[in-house]
Amino acid sequence: MADPNPTHTEICGATPDRIEVRGRDLVHELVGKLTFTQMFLFHLLGRDPTPMQTAITDAVLVCIMEHGLVPSTVAARLTWLGAPDSYQGAVAAGLLGVGDRFAGTASRCAELLDRIVARPAAERESEARALVEALRRERKPVPGFGHPTHKGADPRVPRLIEIARGQGASGEYLAALTLLAAAIERTLGRPLPMNVSAAIAAVVREAQLPAQAVRGLILTARCAGIVGHLLEESERPAAQAMWEAAEREVPYRAPSA
Amino acid sequence: MADPNPTHTEICGATPDRIEVRGRDLVHELVGKLTFTQMFLFHLLGRDPTPMQTAITDAVLVCIMEHGLVPSTVAARLTWLGAPDSYQGAVAAGLLGVGDRFAGTASRCAELLDRIVARPAAERESEARALVEALRRERKPVPGFGHPTHKGADPRVPRLIEIARGQGASGEYLAALTLLAAAIERTLGRPLPMNVSAAIAAVVREAQLPAQAVRGLILTARCAGIVGHLLEESERPAAQAMWEAAEREVPYRAPSA
Amino acid sequence: MADPNPTHTEICGATPDRIEVRGRDLVHELVGKLTFTQMFLFHLLGRDPTPMQTAITDAVLVCIMEHGLVPSTVAARLTWLGAPDSYQGAVAAGLLGVGDRFAGTASRCAELLDRIVARPAAERESEARALVEALRRERKPVPGFGHPTHKGADPRVPRLIEIARGQGASGEYLAALTLLAAAIERTLGRPLPMNVSAAIAAVVREAQLPAQAVRGLILTARCAGIVGHLLEESERPAAQAMWEAAEREVPYRAPSA
Amino acid sequence: MADPNPTHTEICGATPDRIEVRGRDLVHELVGKLTFTQMFLFHLLGRDPTPMQTAITDAVLVCIMEHGLVPSTVAARLTWLGAPDSYQGAVAAGLLGVGDRFAGTASRCAELLDRIVARPAAERESEARALVEALRRERKPVPGFGHPTHKGADPRVPRLIEIARGQGASGEYLAALTLLAAAIERTLGRPLPMNVSAAIAAVVREAQLPAQAVRGLILTARCAGIVGHLLEESERPAAQAMWEAAEREVPYRAPSA
Repeated sequence: MADPNPTHTEICGATPDRIEVRGRDLVHELVGKLTFTQMFLFHLLGRDPTPMQTAITDAVLVCIMEHGLVPSTVAARLTWLGAPDSYQGAVAAGLLGVGDRFAGTASRCAELLDRIVARPAAERESEARALVEALRRERKPVPGFGHPTHKGADPRVPRLIEIARGQGASGEYLAALTLLAAAIERTLGRPLPMNVSAAIAAVVREAQLPAQAVRGLILTARCAGIVGHLLEESERPAAQAMWEAAEREVPYRAPSA
Repeated sequence: MADPNPTHTEICGATPDRIEVRGRDLVHELVGKLTFTQMFLFHLLGRDPTPMQTAITDAVLVCIMEHGLVPSTVAARLTWLGAPDSYQGAVAAGLLGVGDRFAGTASRCAELLDRIVARPAAERESEARALVEALRRERKPVPGFGHPTHKGADPRVPRLIEIARGQGASGEYLAALTLLAAAIERTLGRPLPMNVSAAIAAVVREAQLPAQAVRGLILTARCAGIVGHLLEESERPAAQAMWEAAEREVPYRAPSA
Repeated sequence: MADPNPTHTEICGATPDRIEVRGRDLVHELVGKLTFTQMFLFHLLGRDPTPMQTAITDAVLVCIMEHGLVPSTVAARLTWLGAPDSYQGAVAAGLLGVGDRFAGTASRCAELLDRIVARPAAERESEARALVEALRRERKPVPGFGHPTHKGADPRVPRLIEIARGQGASGEYLAALTLLAAAIERTLGRPLPMNVSAAIAAVVREAQLPAQAVRGLILTARCAGIVGHLLEESERPAAQAMWEAAEREVPYRAPSA
Repeated sequence: MADPNPTHTEICGATPDRIEVRGRDLVHELVGKLTFTQMFLFHLLGRDPTPMQTAITDAVLVCIMEHGLVPSTVAARLTWLGAPDSYQGAVAAGLLGVGDRFAGTASRCAELLDRIVARPAAERESEARALVEALRRERKPVPGFGHPTHKGADPRVPRLIEIARGQGASGEYLAALTLLAAAIERTLGRPLPMNVSAAIAAVVREAQLPAQAVRGLILTARCAGIVGHLLEESERPAAQAMWEAAEREVPYRAPSA
């Protein structure tokens, strides 16, 4: 029988005295019973998360909430300096800078891992090599490898992997990540360090969270970090000084005619 | 002695092999040890949160993560429809609608509660009345009272209050909220229901979180909710149908000359 | 008779072979016949702008399109650095910083001028004084006066006024602005320079454009300016250097325990 | 000799009594002398635009300022409904939806035209066919062809082309666009209508504006259109009705367990 109402949402419905989220009573079944992270996973998955999913997600969210005065936190503070009337505008401006270059690489790395794991075990090594070589031909970086600050080894990487293993992860995606690293070393003739995006991609997929959720986790963690920066900005203003330093660094010069 | 470097940040510093957040080693002291909510509070407060602070914050974040197809989630989905190339743009657009009207009232309600609690006990009732009357003179609504959907009583309100009391909250801000409700009833001649913003304001202040953090908590919880809506949108697209319904609802009519 | 369709739009309707904007055929009556500025004013006003309205609007838009590496253009460039995948995100981040502090003061100045002009001529001087004194009591700045860079006299102010006078403006709002400046000098005991926001407010109201449109003109002009900055950023990258300068300026210091 | 200051900007520098934009005195050489469009082009190009460049840019900006209640204008109005405290936030939310799907296709179409024109005349037809076939193999649409509303022929297309020809355009990019349309018809076995993005791409390149500027022109024109929608929203509110229609259209249904 045809669906009489093909377009609908299964997330949330509210009546005057009840708010239902994915079939549960928000007030009586969720509030006070779930942590933020458990609720976030329940919202995404539509079922109670496993302890492993919760532990890995908490570790990922804690890991990437904060990385200091990166472009997105500087942009958030500068936006608040110009528009102190709009707190949400400053947060939004900060999140707009969480794109492909810094944090968004994790979701693309997760896609590579998925393609490797989709192959039978015997073909995964050659799939990893094929993926790296294809990116190299297009002169694109391999998402998840190399970092401007942590040039040697990003200390967050082994910690996230350790947590995933400690939670009993099957290790399939971690193995795929190792294949990817080996393929890079073979193709480039030298190893490149994994950055935190690669580790996030692997442990999120170990936790069987959808690859698409990676960007969402990162944005939510960074949202919390930006909130902390704005609180510090209100207590110890730094945006004006950062702006003036940026302006001094890039002086105006009239174009030569 | 004068501060040799007056502008600095105390949030986070990164060196090639260490990321330090508020004096702690991120990788070894925080990741895998704190939940998201504990880390968020540590980030905001600069010290370990108490169990009461964590429990209240989790309850608040769970409570407001989701309220269905409100303007901000509709805006996020429509933005993604127009710009599927920018996930963070869709999230940012959703957060931009989390302003004074729907969710932002909580921070203003917290300010009212602070002003009541700042008075000696004997003067709090009259302070509450003075605040309500001042708003009424300016024809402004009292933040935290009245709700378009939950006209009778918002079911989230007693639950949040119950959780705060169960955590051993002192009750000062909850009492101030009761004074505010009574002042409204006396001034208007009829009671107005508290909405979830009022309860959030009271329990956040019971937890001794800064009033300014209220907006940040709300934005972060809503960020997670928007992420869930975008995941559903990718699995069960609804934005096109919502757009067309909105367009049909508001037809074009040539202006009369 | 009751309106059978109370909610409608009078801006634009499209059918497969015709796009109608405010009653005109877009393709045959507007494209190729109006400049951008004339179309913008027709869109806002619903009627052909006068030559004075067009000339003043062009002057205002040209005047504020560009002011160098201000917080909003720096934020736009930093956002693009972090998210090169989203051009519109970088533009949006830049516009989010065009708020009350830098550019948004013009609309609030226009409201002050409206309140002065709403009085009979004999009462305008005392109205200006009352407005300034009320702001001073609340320790709020008078919108449109004082500027961090142009401390003496903002060179854009006399030029905009000159253009408005040259277009035959009645001068009522310019006179109100002079009353405001005099009230400030009397109240503070010293003059404060008008900044460009004050001049914009006065000439926009001389052109009989709605006060609310002021913010819209500013955002649109700044949008064009940000577009130019992103083009330069793609040709002569500066965001990385600005970020590093900002980060150096505000070093991390562990909080004292 | 090495550049002593490699990072600089050539756009704008301000001193207390002078604002210089690309080597010109803003106040005395630009304000009151250039229209918005001329200034925008001078800002982008660093030199005075030709009459053809100005005429084509004005036509493009007028053409795309407005297309009714499309997702981005609906998102802007909904955002303002939720956050009436932030005008710039509503405008930014609207612009965030101006991405690849609706308006951003023009810049990608311009890139195709550039690749065709880069070939010697005798090879352009086969280049057009190769480009279309490559897109078809990747199951990607050809940017600039097909439109949900204007299924037959977009009336804006011939008008923009007519204006470009009337301004003495060389016709190289218009010819490339015709080759692209022919290649589509041959590959698909049926013609697809050009939409306005294709025409914009061609005429902007005829005007020798950089392909990257296309997105910037579109965002700026749409910014003006959104400003008009917010002005109407303040006079004749429609966002609440649009929200409720969208919510009714997509009801909540509890997921089946």
